[in-house]
Order: sequence, then C-alpha cells, then structure tokens
Amino acid sequence: MTRLAVIPGDGIGTEVVAEGLKVLEAVGVKFDTHHYDLGAARYHRTGETLPDSVLEELRGFDAILLGAVGDPSVPPGVLERDLLLKLRFELDHYVNLRPVKLFPGVKTPIADAGPDDIDMVVVREGTESLYAGAGGVLRKGTPHEVATQESLNTAFGVERVVRYAFDKAQSRPRKHLTLVHKTNVLTFAGDLWARTVKRVAADYPEVTTDYQHVDAASMFFVTHPSRFDVIVTDNLFGDIITDIGAAIAGGIGLAASGNVNPDRTAPSMFEPVHGSAPDIAGQGKADPTATILSVAMLLDHLGHAAEAVRVEQAVAADILARTPGRSTSRIGDDIATRVAGGA
Amino acid sequence: MTRLAVIPGDGIGTEVVAEGLKVLEAVGVKFDTHHYDLGAARYHRTGETLPDSVLEELRGFDAILLGAVGDPSVPPGVLERDLLLKLRFELDHYVNLRPVKLFPGVKTPIADAGPDDIDMVVVREGTESLYAGAGGVLRKGTPHEVATQESLNTAFGVERVVRYAFDKAQSRPRKHLTLVHKTNVLTFAGDLWARTVKRVAADYPEVTTDYQHVDAASMFFVTHPSRFDVIVTDNLFGDIITDIGAAIAGGIGLAASGNVNPDRTAPSMFEPVHGSAPDIAGQGKADPTATILSVAMLLDHLGHAAEAVRVEQAVAADILARTPGRSTSRIGDDIATRVAGGA
Ligand SMILES: CC(C)[C@H](C(=O)O)[C@@H](O)C(=O)O
Ligand SMILES: CC(C)[C@H](C(=O)O)[C@@H](O)C(=O)O
Repeated sequence: MTRLAVIPGDGIGTEVVAEGLKVLEAVGVKFDTHHYDLGAARYHRTGETLPDSVLEELRGFDAILLGAVGDPSVPPGVLERDLLLKLRFELDHYVNLRPVKLFPGVKTPIADAGPDDIDMVVVREGTESLYAGAGGVLRKGTPHEVATQESLNTAFGVERVVRYAFDKAQSRPRKHLTLVHKTNVLTFAGDLWARTVKRVAADYPEVTTDYQHVDAASMFFVTHPSRFDVIVTDNLFGDIITDIGAAIAGGIGLAASGNVNPDRTAPSMFEPVHGSAPDIAGQGKADPTATILSVAMLLDHLGHAAEAVRVEQAVAADILARTPGRSTSRIGDDIATRVAGGA
Repeated sequence: MTRLAVIPGDGIGTEVVAEGLKVLEAVGVKFDTHHYDLGAARYHRTGETLPDSVLEELRGFDAILLGAVGDPSVPPGVLERDLLLKLRFELDHYVNLRPVKLFPGVKTPIADAGPDDIDMVVVREGTESLYAGAGGVLRKGTPHEVATQESLNTAFGVERVVRYAFDKAQSRPRKHLTLVHKTNVLTFAGDLWARTVKRVAADYPEVTTDYQHVDAASMFFVTHPSRFDVIVTDNLFGDIITDIGAAIAGGIGLAASGNVNPDRTAPSMFEPVHGSAPDIAGQGKADPTATILSVAMLLDHLGHAAEAVRVEQAVAADILARTPGRSTSRIGDDIATRVAGGA
C-alpha cells in the first residue's frame, strides 16, 4: 500500500492537515499513514527538530503531507532551517511547484482581473541559492560586525529545474516560460540561469520564452498577471513572488504547493504555502482549502490523476457555494462530501 | 548658486528629464545646471560607463538628477553596475528613499483601496547586501559550473539606515516602522538587522515597530497596504517591494525616488523608479510625473521645502485634471504652468 508520512506541525498546521486527510479518505485511495510529531512541541520537549533516525524513516515513504511549522516560542529560523528546509534539501525537493490560479467565485484584490487572467504555475528552485544557509558573522554585536549570506548556484541544480519547467510549459496550452531573476545585479548567478534557459530552450522548440527582472515581475503580478504562464525562478525570488501570487489568487488560504523530487529518489512533500498562523490557531478559523489542494497535487504526483481532478473539482464547487463563517472542519466536511460524490 | 548635475541617460530618460527641468525652471529656484551624457550612447562611442574624472566632477555638485540608464544594445548589467550602482555606492547613497503614495484620482489596481490606505515610505538600504557585487564563477559553461553571489552587511551600514528610518517614522503622524527582511532564512544578515532595529528603537520611544518577512510583506502590499507607514529594508528586498509599491500606487509612471547621502559628504541623486523603457522611447509616450516628483524630493533635500510642496501640489492637481493621451511634454507643460501659478 502507498505509504504516507504526515507532519501536521504547529499552530493551524494540525487543523488543516486533519481536513486534508479527511478528503484523502473520501477520495478512496488507500494509504498507510504514519504521523510524525515534528515541530515546536517536540523541540521544547526534547530539543530535537529533525532527528537523523526520523529523517531516515521518512525516506521510506512514498510522499509526505505537511501542515506548517513555526511558533513564536522557538527562536526565528530554527524550525524553518532545521526542519522544513532540511527536509526540502535532504529529500532533494529541487522543484517547489506553486500554482497561482484564480478559481471562479474567488474574490481577487486585483480590480478587473478574472480567472482567465490569473492562471500560472511557478516552478521555484528548492535546493540552492541563498537557502543553502551559507554565510557567517564576524565581531557580532560590535560596531564592527560583518554578516554575510552566500547564494550558491550550480549548473547541475539550475539545469534540472529549468528542464522541469520547460516540460511543464510544454504540457500547457500557452507553452510559455518566463525566467524571473535579477541578472543585472546578481550577475554571476543570473548569467548561469539565463544561459541555461537559452541552451535548454533549443530542446523545446514549441515553448516560447521571455525574461523579467524579479522587481518588474513582482509589479506585473499586480498589474498584468496574464503575462505569465509558467515561471521558473530561483529559490528566494520564488518565495517572494509566490506570496504575491497567493495574494492575487485570493489569499494564502488557497495556495497549495508541492516540494517535488521529480527523480523520485526520495518522497516528495506537499504543503500549503501559508504558515502556522499562531494568532488564529486552535479556533477553527483556518481555511483548509490550501492543504486540500496540496492533497490533490500529492495524488497527482502519485499517479492518481483522476482522483486529483476530483479533489480539485470539489474545491472549485465548494468555492462557488461558499457561505461565510464556516469552520475549518466544516469546510473539510463539505469538500469531502463532494469528493465522495455526495453533492 | 546651487549646482545640479543632470544625467538624462537612455531611452525615455532624456524625455522625462527634460520635463523635470522644465518644472524646476518654473518653480523659480535658480540652478547652475550641467549635463552629462552618460549611458548607452557614450558606452558605444568610447567604451566608458563612468570615467573616474567624471565621477570626481560629479562629487562637486549639490545634487544629481538622473533619468534612466539601460539599453538592449549593452550587455545586461553593464550600465546598471558600472554606472547607476557605481554612482550609488561611490556617492554613499545609503538611503534609497521611495515613497509609495496613492494620489487622489489615480486608479490603483487594488480593489477597495484608496489614498488613505496607501501612504508609506520605503527606506531601502543602498550600499550593501547582494548589491555589493561580490561573487564569482567556477568552470563557467561546463556541467560543473558553480556561481556564487555574496550579500555583505555591516553594523555600520545597517545602523545608519535604520536610524534614518526611525527619524522618518518619528516625523510622520503614525510613527510606525516595519522592518522587512527574511530572518528565518538569511539568519546572519537578518539577525544583524533585527538586533539593530531593536537597539535603535530604545532611542525612539514614540515609534512603534514590527517585523515582516519579505514574502509576507509582499503579500500585504497587495492585500493590506494600510499596515505600513515607514518600512526599512535591505537593498534587494527594497528593490522588489518598491516595484510592488509602484504597482499599487498607480504605476511606475508615478514612482519617485531619492538616492540620498544624509551626511552630505557627496551629492544625492534623484531619479524615477522606472527604467529606460526602450520600447516606447522617442515617442512622447512616457509619463514624466515620476521624474517631476523626484525633482520635488530634490528640492526638499536641498532645503527648498516650500517649492517641493508646490511641485507636489501641482502634480496632485494635474492628476485630478488628467486627460488621456497627453504627450510627455504636454504633461510637463501642464505641471510647469501650475507650478508657476498659472492654474
Ligand atoms: C518558512 C520559510 C522558510 C519558507 C520559505 O522561505 O521557503 C516559506 O516562506 C515558504 O515559502 O514555504
Ligand atoms: C536598474 C537596477 C540596477 C535598479 C536596482 O536594482 O536597484 C532598479 O531596479 C532600481 O530599483 O533602481
């Protein structure tokens, strides 16, 4: 049976993951599911973030569903770096896949934009760049302190994600790929990205390409989102533009993501783009839709394309029928009922 | 007499600068003005971007007005790095000041947002971080290529811009300062920024502070711009969020900026946020308003506060009276007429 590791994490993570699993149950694909209590609570109890033994166990699964990690009681960066990013790096999630799609019926903050204008996929690199954690500090706390961060980029790492993005563009009706970077300032890394896109493009004659600086792209997300079809970009720029993407597509409550290892040398991990939102945790206020859409991506990744479509369609129908003030579990119930064919 | 260096630059830079000077003339402050033909044309003619002798001459001015640099005929990054960024670094423009303000009558792409919601100032650091140009490449063009970029941050550099931002916040009614960074990933640099804000805050008891990760801040620019009053941020993050700021405040045609050396050890430089827009250059289509607002910032910086307000008010009135299809020079004429008291 397909083995699924579940990491609910912190804050609203546990609440939204419960709804994701409800929908997974309703869709009828059987999983052998194991829960892992990684996150702030375990960190406080044991000092551990991601023990080696757990990491090794996780490698044996077919996929991972993650809620959210992070809590104000833990020093900033600890859970992010030693748990979430460590999983992405250790499991070689070199594709961080983030659809930006406005569902009919969802209110976008962008005036005059509709579902036809906002329908793109961001392919964010997941294992390089400033996320490598390289850097240091000298004379900390003195007037002579120097702090550095290093962005590490390799031909190997850039080419594989660029190829993935071309494949993705090739599979979509518009077949258009935009590289987003900052080649005029990050000249070494930007040049590597630009040359790689140019070279790989020769293998995809049907795909048209263009380039935007990250500052201009961020602006166009707001003013002309229909310019974009598939975007390929660096880890940090992808982090920023996918949050703008979430904003224009109706908010962080709807933004799904997959940390994908396309070579399948380790399990891929699916998670909502939102964080643990400690301010609303435990109140049944979180929208589980992003997690449920992440479950759809998980199903698709595991070869259950029809079930993935059923979940997506149930979400689309649920959105059109939205009534305000539904609780987290009520939204999960409603979508699960639709998935099971009940409505 | 006050000495002003003018660098029209490339593309629409020359067109918008002409209108900026028209307005400066109309406001009645006399300047001794010298033009410098830096940009793509000079690069092609002589191979020079910013000769040392010109840089030394520029140091002798009281301020610089710049249009835009950059042209597709020049390899990406050359004019940006060796001219624009070189000026910012050599003249120690450690404050890159970018107001994000929605003028009444301007259409913002953000539904439901009005002038009361969008009124902030971004204080972008201008002389450090990934803009230092540090980095390198190994085995270029091979499958084993490695490209790095290094972000350099110092206590000296961070503290001075943070103090400036606190002063700015102190001078505004809301007295609120938000640090935007990515402390959970850029842990060394982020920690330096966060500690510095915390320490300097003790000297500004009236200013409230908060913190946003750059991804969340980018989202809030779209969904909740009224959260922000003054923002202080790193060079790269400031580049990105000020373009989102331009987008929500009605477009790049209205976004002004100052590259400020608050210690006045060298001239400050004022420029529209937009680029040289080669696609519309020479057609009289560019909106000179961003340059004219940059001229207002220049006047204010040089101690002509009343004249700065007059230019701002003329722009505000012009915006309310906008008729579509006006040419670049017509907009300049209309604003200059208002400034001169004619309307
Ligand atoms: C929590 C943080 C480390 C993470 C990131 O920066 O990638 C988050 O913002 C995301 O986008 O998944
Ligand atoms: C042209 C480029 C180097 C510049 C920057 O990145 O600072 C521009 O985008 C800006 O914001 O002034």
